[in-house]
Amino acid sequence: MGLLQPDWQWKKEKGSGVHQWIEQNPFPVNPDVVLFAAPLSRSSISVSGASLYPDAFRRGWKGFSVYNLDEHIDLSSLHVADLGDVPMHTTDIKESHRRIEAAAAQVASTFSNSYTCLIGGDHSITACSIRGIQKANPNERIGIIQFDTHLDVRNPDELGPANGTPIRQLIEGGVVNGSNIYNIGLHGFFNAPELVQYAVSQGIHMITLRTAREQGIIPTIREVLNALNESVDRIYVTVDMDVLDISVAQGVPASTPGGMTAYELFDALCEVGKADKAKHIDFVCLDPTKDTLAQATVKTGVYAFLQWLTGIQLLRQGT
Amino acid sequence: MGLLQPDWQWKKEKGSGVHQWIEQNPFPVNPDVVLFAAPLSRSSISVSGASLYPDAFRRGWKGFSVYNLDEHIDLSSLHVADLGDVPMHTTDIKESHRRIEAAAAQVASTFSNSYTCLIGGDHSITACSIRGIQKANPNERIGIIQFDTHLDVRNPDELGPANGTPIRQLIEGGVVNGSNIYNIGLHGFFNAPELVQYAVSQGIHMITLRTAREQGIIPTIREVLNALNESVDRIYVTVDMDVLDISVAQGVPASTPGGMTAYELFDALCEVGKADKAKHIDFVCLDPTKDTLAQATVKTGVYAFLQWLTGIQLLRQGT
Amino acid sequence: MGLLQPDWQWKKEKGSGVHQWIEQNPFPVNPDVVLFAAPLSRSSISVSGASLYPDAFRRGWKGFSVYNLDEHIDLSSLHVADLGDVPMHTTDIKESHRRIEAAAAQVASTFSNSYTCLIGGDHSITACSIRGIQKANPNERIGIIQFDTHLDVRNPDELGPANGTPIRQLIEGGVVNGSNIYNIGLHGFFNAPELVQYAVSQGIHMITLRTAREQGIIPTIREVLNALNESVDRIYVTVDMDVLDISVAQGVPASTPGGMTAYELFDALCEVGKADKAKHIDFVCLDPTKDTLAQATVKTGVYAFLQWLTGIQLLRQGT
Amino acid sequence: MGLLQPDWQWKKEKGSGVHQWIEQNPFPVNPDVVLFAAPLSRSSISVSGASLYPDAFRRGWKGFSVYNLDEHIDLSSLHVADLGDVPMHTTDIKESHRRIEAAAAQVASTFSNSYTCLIGGDHSITACSIRGIQKANPNERIGIIQFDTHLDVRNPDELGPANGTPIRQLIEGGVVNGSNIYNIGLHGFFNAPELVQYAVSQGIHMITLRTAREQGIIPTIREVLNALNESVDRIYVTVDMDVLDISVAQGVPASTPGGMTAYELFDALCEVGKADKAKHIDFVCLDPTKDTLAQATVKTGVYAFLQWLTGIQLLRQGT
Amino acid sequence: MGLLQPDWQWKKEKGSGVHQWIEQNPFPVNPDVVLFAAPLSRSSISVSGASLYPDAFRRGWKGFSVYNLDEHIDLSSLHVADLGDVPMHTTDIKESHRRIEAAAAQVASTFSNSYTCLIGGDHSITACSIRGIQKANPNERIGIIQFDTHLDVRNPDELGPANGTPIRQLIEGGVVNGSNIYNIGLHGFFNAPELVQYAVSQGIHMITLRTAREQGIIPTIREVLNALNESVDRIYVTVDMDVLDISVAQGVPASTPGGMTAYELFDALCEVGKADKAKHIDFVCLDPTKDTLAQATVKTGVYAFLQWLTGIQLLRQGT
Amino acid sequence: MGLLQPDWQWKKEKGSGVHQWIEQNPFPVNPDVVLFAAPLSRSSISVSGASLYPDAFRRGWKGFSVYNLDEHIDLSSLHVADLGDVPMHTTDIKESHRRIEAAAAQVASTFSNSYTCLIGGDHSITACSIRGIQKANPNERIGIIQFDTHLDVRNPDELGPANGTPIRQLIEGGVVNGSNIYNIGLHGFFNAPELVQYAVSQGIHMITLRTAREQGIIPTIREVLNALNESVDRIYVTVDMDVLDISVAQGVPASTPGGMTAYELFDALCEVGKADKAKHIDFVCLDPTKDTLAQATVKTGVYAFLQWLTGIQLLRQGT
Repeated sequence: MGLLQPDWQWKKEKGSGVHQWIEQNPFPVNPDVVLFAAPLSRSSISVSGASLYPDAFRRGWKGFSVYNLDEHIDLSSLHVADLGDVPMHTTDIKESHRRIEAAAAQVASTFSNSYTCLIGGDHSITACSIRGIQKANPNERIGIIQFDTHLDVRNPDELGPANGTPIRQLIEGGVVNGSNIYNIGLHGFFNAPELVQYAVSQGIHMITLRTAREQGIIPTIREVLNALNESVDRIYVTVDMDVLDISVAQGVPASTPGGMTAYELFDALCEVGKADKAKHIDFVCLDPTKDTLAQATVKTGVYAFLQWLTGIQLLRQGT
Repeated sequence: MGLLQPDWQWKKEKGSGVHQWIEQNPFPVNPDVVLFAAPLSRSSISVSGASLYPDAFRRGWKGFSVYNLDEHIDLSSLHVADLGDVPMHTTDIKESHRRIEAAAAQVASTFSNSYTCLIGGDHSITACSIRGIQKANPNERIGIIQFDTHLDVRNPDELGPANGTPIRQLIEGGVVNGSNIYNIGLHGFFNAPELVQYAVSQGIHMITLRTAREQGIIPTIREVLNALNESVDRIYVTVDMDVLDISVAQGVPASTPGGMTAYELFDALCEVGKADKAKHIDFVCLDPTKDTLAQATVKTGVYAFLQWLTGIQLLRQGT
Repeated sequence: MGLLQPDWQWKKEKGSGVHQWIEQNPFPVNPDVVLFAAPLSRSSISVSGASLYPDAFRRGWKGFSVYNLDEHIDLSSLHVADLGDVPMHTTDIKESHRRIEAAAAQVASTFSNSYTCLIGGDHSITACSIRGIQKANPNERIGIIQFDTHLDVRNPDELGPANGTPIRQLIEGGVVNGSNIYNIGLHGFFNAPELVQYAVSQGIHMITLRTAREQGIIPTIREVLNALNESVDRIYVTVDMDVLDISVAQGVPASTPGGMTAYELFDALCEVGKADKAKHIDFVCLDPTKDTLAQATVKTGVYAFLQWLTGIQLLRQGT
Repeated sequence: MGLLQPDWQWKKEKGSGVHQWIEQNPFPVNPDVVLFAAPLSRSSISVSGASLYPDAFRRGWKGFSVYNLDEHIDLSSLHVADLGDVPMHTTDIKESHRRIEAAAAQVASTFSNSYTCLIGGDHSITACSIRGIQKANPNERIGIIQFDTHLDVRNPDELGPANGTPIRQLIEGGVVNGSNIYNIGLHGFFNAPELVQYAVSQGIHMITLRTAREQGIIPTIREVLNALNESVDRIYVTVDMDVLDISVAQGVPASTPGGMTAYELFDALCEVGKADKAKHIDFVCLDPTKDTLAQATVKTGVYAFLQWLTGIQLLRQGT
Repeated sequence: MGLLQPDWQWKKEKGSGVHQWIEQNPFPVNPDVVLFAAPLSRSSISVSGASLYPDAFRRGWKGFSVYNLDEHIDLSSLHVADLGDVPMHTTDIKESHRRIEAAAAQVASTFSNSYTCLIGGDHSITACSIRGIQKANPNERIGIIQFDTHLDVRNPDELGPANGTPIRQLIEGGVVNGSNIYNIGLHGFFNAPELVQYAVSQGIHMITLRTAREQGIIPTIREVLNALNESVDRIYVTVDMDVLDISVAQGVPASTPGGMTAYELFDALCEVGKADKAKHIDFVCLDPTKDTLAQATVKTGVYAFLQWLTGIQLLRQGT
Repeated sequence: MGLLQPDWQWKKEKGSGVHQWIEQNPFPVNPDVVLFAAPLSRSSISVSGASLYPDAFRRGWKGFSVYNLDEHIDLSSLHVADLGDVPMHTTDIKESHRRIEAAAAQVASTFSNSYTCLIGGDHSITACSIRGIQKANPNERIGIIQFDTHLDVRNPDELGPANGTPIRQLIEGGVVNGSNIYNIGLHGFFNAPELVQYAVSQGIHMITLRTAREQGIIPTIREVLNALNESVDRIYVTVDMDVLDISVAQGVPASTPGGMTAYELFDALCEVGKADKAKHIDFVCLDPTKDTLAQATVKTGVYAFLQWLTGIQLLRQGT
């Protein structure tokens, strides 16, 4: 035989790895969940390589199976599609933000029956994402569940649309009402008093980690979901990975001591996934260049994403 | 005086360090516990330096005392002997496996009244170890308690005797009955659905970490021990260190988020040590070259080993 | 305009960062809390860069706000002053110890109405610090709450005034009675049996971490405070950061597996801050050169310090 | 004595360290050399922490003395003043660039008799800096000596004013004539063919590292200086630290194998310092967060700066 | 518009990056150079992750352009094809070696007019590779130029076909005559005396690094090529990356002080590329998991490969 | 057979590794070279783990063979004995220095026909070592060849006997005459002007690295040896590893850019070894905890030591 044996070539392996399951296709048909990414972190106040997380996140899929042993369910009947990255401008941050907003609007209208997940990038993208979703659903009220160590209500007049400002942008832009925002994970000494005052003045619900733990993470999430079910039409969940304790999230530049455990975040996200109105999620601020050698934080990020999908699948199965 | 003062020379220090207590001797007399090592990890599916763990484990003894403050007991009346390493072949993995099996058989028959502990190396050595023990005790039924994030029932026909296959090798080799295997620590998305199906088909008891936590780690272990006491003559405990959460076991290449805490493993191993039939243990898959600067994982490995000895000593003291 | 615009120059930023709040001044007027540092670690048995912690600690303030969200209190009405470093001798460890003792005495008498906090350096400085305080308050009985994985009662006759010996120095020097010492955090295999015997013989209260957890950290602290309130006039709290579990304190050379969580230490220190007689604290043995890239341990050290201040402020507010 | 001893306080140490010599003052009188910094790197094509170099550079002074042993000269009679940082906008890169340009113009006119040194930040700041200098000296022709592995003539129409574009911005902006640009240090495979074509078309002098080595680094610099002395009124030297070989500049994200040795750069900069018309220099693209544990790259950056000052001092001494 | 904009999708970028130029195709038509990889390092005597180099090598292409500035030539007219990886068995090293040998034979005969480059993996693969080439060219004599710090003539009877044995395997297998082997790069204390004696007894030409430097690297290579042109029909070049000095090759487990500089290796490989008979090359023993944060060694490996291609292109252009 | 097979036990391997050749014995008979160590670095001005170098140095032997390929000589006929460590006091630095001095005197008189090598520890030990040697040889004049980036003539009245002071201690103690001291390796900005003045005033020969390179390292060493042969009876060589460039000696806290290459140090030490009067050497200031992952600095330290032995062996062979 004069030809090379075909088993030398790269081929799409078959199997039950997450990387073999998620479809990478910008034009998927009837997906249950669509995924897209905004690799932007030059909008971060401090130096951040969170723009590299989308790639790290996708490469991280390889270490995960579609089977969730805790729940004994197989996720593979969920149709999950990765649309790819929104292309970022190299130096014009506002232009990058415009593109994210346009993309979010387009995704929300094109895939109006799907759950959407945006992978950051830093927290500045959340403001763009929610503005885009609102454009696609102009008559709906949007609520936010924010897992975060910070309020992210710093003043955009001072900083521009930086990663400390998205919640304030949305409130001041009239996109989301402060009383429809629930921040879970606040703790310690990481928010200036004037920002806390601002949050109070806007009616933001600040559920400290201590409070959440005392009443249980899952009951806390359920209570928040019940309240939002009353007051809004659509729930957006934003996961700033700095909500996690620094010992489990060394690769998130703003993570702190005293933060949420990974177990708590995993439980919370599964619960959120079961909520009908919680159609949108994002994961932000994970910088893979700061991660440990074992890539503990990136792996935690992938796990968190799969827990959300687990919740969705449990809802679909009527569990 | 024309001679050098003798206090310059290396001497065996006296004291209560673990390194001063464990006897390093291949021919010990009446040891309570014998220790030997199989520095093999070229059988690992992914690159692993677990072959370097035996050395790191022994060097790590220096930081530990023989006194367990939690239980207020002194381990030094236990006679623990380290027989050394089974010599590995440089490139012939099957030959290395043969030697480990022969060594395990020889140790089990030579020291039939002792507890034995095998330090790996990767998980492939567990199959060899249990086959060796069976040879030394041909008329006994052996059960397994497996602390592991994975089922390790991948197909040896495909991979050869790699570190993902030992449990399947033992089942298919007729050495251990699937229904006498208890896996504790399973969680998350780290086992392919077909492997779970295989485990179900073989009657392997899959106790997820969530379940174990809900009923308590110690009660879980007791329940498993009670069941095995009924069904087998001899219990082998295999500790794949990847059962630990990645934040406490960065030096185990396959550790994951959502895993067992060190506290849980320590409690479990003390409980196991108290069980009469649990004569054999191994610790595998810890790669010291991946550990943190503080060597947190190696230290956790030594602590885990001492917790097992604590259980044995508590049993001996009739506590 | 011929001059440079003034906004290029370094200026003291205004704001609510901890670095903007704590006064750096050796001659403060009516401070509530004074802080000083002893950058000495050549007295450590093993190589330690804990002498670099005071600088790292101060640089770490920048990431923290004066507002404690868990308690919803603003610390900024507390007047906290940093007096600077006690100058150390390059090679004469005893001279350095004399200077620390003199400084501690001077601080205790100059600021007799203030709380004092000494930042180490290694644990050898605690003996100097308490001797100095006793000199300033010669008619008072002093008790110690020691958060530590170790007893630190090694023999100074053998080692000199090294970091393993401070508690024994104080007992043998007649400065503190053994029965007025409470060690919280002991666990595992990190104290030689003869040291445990010494502690027993001196009446040191050894509260293992297991015991503290079983009865709750906060109730444990309260019980200890109650007991000391009866028996002494003044309580000194010494926090050897090696009390923390190695997974959260990689930057403490002697931290171990099985140690205290950061959450537990934070709760304990807030409780201690509320105690009227607990006027003095130190934090020792944190080596920033061993810390993780994310500086998790240094950040934990700053958080711990702020938790103590939180307790003080809660006491002042009568909460 | 009721007061604290004054030797505890922070005081400006006296001595011959570089940190004790350079004046930190935005309004210096008759400085020989002024230094200012532009901590901007969100304009970098790839993630960069070069914005943190100004701080690292200043902290690095502490390890250096004012005495140059190779030349046996003392630099302390040079009056060097550090004006501080140009304040950067958090998200508006163009605004940051405008500020750098304004600052450069102001510095060049305020200190028209001084040498100026700008510390980056990334290479995008060079375009701002030279435009500012031109504004301050509108009737002068400016030439550039560029130490760089790259041509930095990528298209700003595509990337905006990113760090790959400064030379092209200057040429297309009519600020500098391509034939007055000498790039020294080009080598290997790090410039696209179309960029080389552009450089050729603009008359940029590309002196490869191989060529420079064959004729000697110092003779090469002299030849370039002679040529520029003929054709321009003022020479700007820009040192992209990525010109250095990756083995000596691990902390420069774009450094490559086959680059300049530190010895060669040091020789070149001393020679440049001796040139009368070479009034301006910048150092860019050193990211201290990527540096080795020993901070080899930051130390090399400080050394390079001091070599330039050495050349200036040699010129002043008429050596 | 109801569809997603196509610029979100992944697309093959156009441009002059090496990753955009090399064709990834197991069935290329008329390639000038074919590349294939053998990701095997479990045959290494010490733990090695060199099996991960093929992937790291390919990902490293992105940082390199097709244009060689030193020679002012564009490589893009060379047709270079990457055939992919030879699939390795997980545990059967001999089977993996058989596959490499078969693949090398098949490549050599299928692409008999092409240069071939094999990317390792460890040095054990060189024996397989040369045996395969000999099978494809049974009537030709093969000579070897070996860049290596070691002789690699350890005894396969003892170690099996490990990475210390390939040259001896080839001599004892009658594949290559010792007198047709030229080792360049030997230095220091890294070969046992009995191995040197073996090399002498077989007529291996040992050209120490010192000797090569004294007569110049390029003249040395020419002399070797001239000699081999006389004595053999085909020259195989094997580059054990441990020939490089440890300061430039931290990511090669066996690199040593006193080794070759990167500049020397680059010059040597360009010279080798110009030699008509030197049709085959391999690069082995680079372990990307040990590399520096800046990936200095992987980048040096890619550069070295491109230098060889530069030589080929210079030969084709008749330069 | 009822016993364990003997091949499991630890045994002294036979072979040609340096670890198999050097005798570890405090009472050797007729050694050619004796080696002893002083694991002291708490005398260092900055934090240093150089006290851990003796252990790292000995463990590093394993990677080296007794055969020097550059010179084609086998070192194994040299009888080299390692006497072990001088026991250090934990906190009394002066006591440790007294022990080193006593040990050096004892070694020098006990092994008066041997070469001696002292492994540090930091540079403070050199003063002790030379004082000890002088005591053993009271009627001899001693000269020093110092490889160092620093003069090490800081004032012991200020610092005590710290690592910056040994040369001044020796001059002021009347042990060595300044004019018999040759410092090779000075360069850059690492010595305060007043220290240079002191050196000039004492007649210390300062041979900068630039000068040494211009006239060749080997000729420079020969010239120095010739001069010392005239003026003294005995030559002590002290190698402060910070003489090496920071890129090759990342594990030496005080190494700097612009330093000596490893090749230069290796050549110099071989030359020194050939000198009849140069009976004593030490290697100091290498801190293995700061070394790269590849342990490049420790390996360079072992290589340097073997180069000195090579010179001795060449002298013995009359080459």
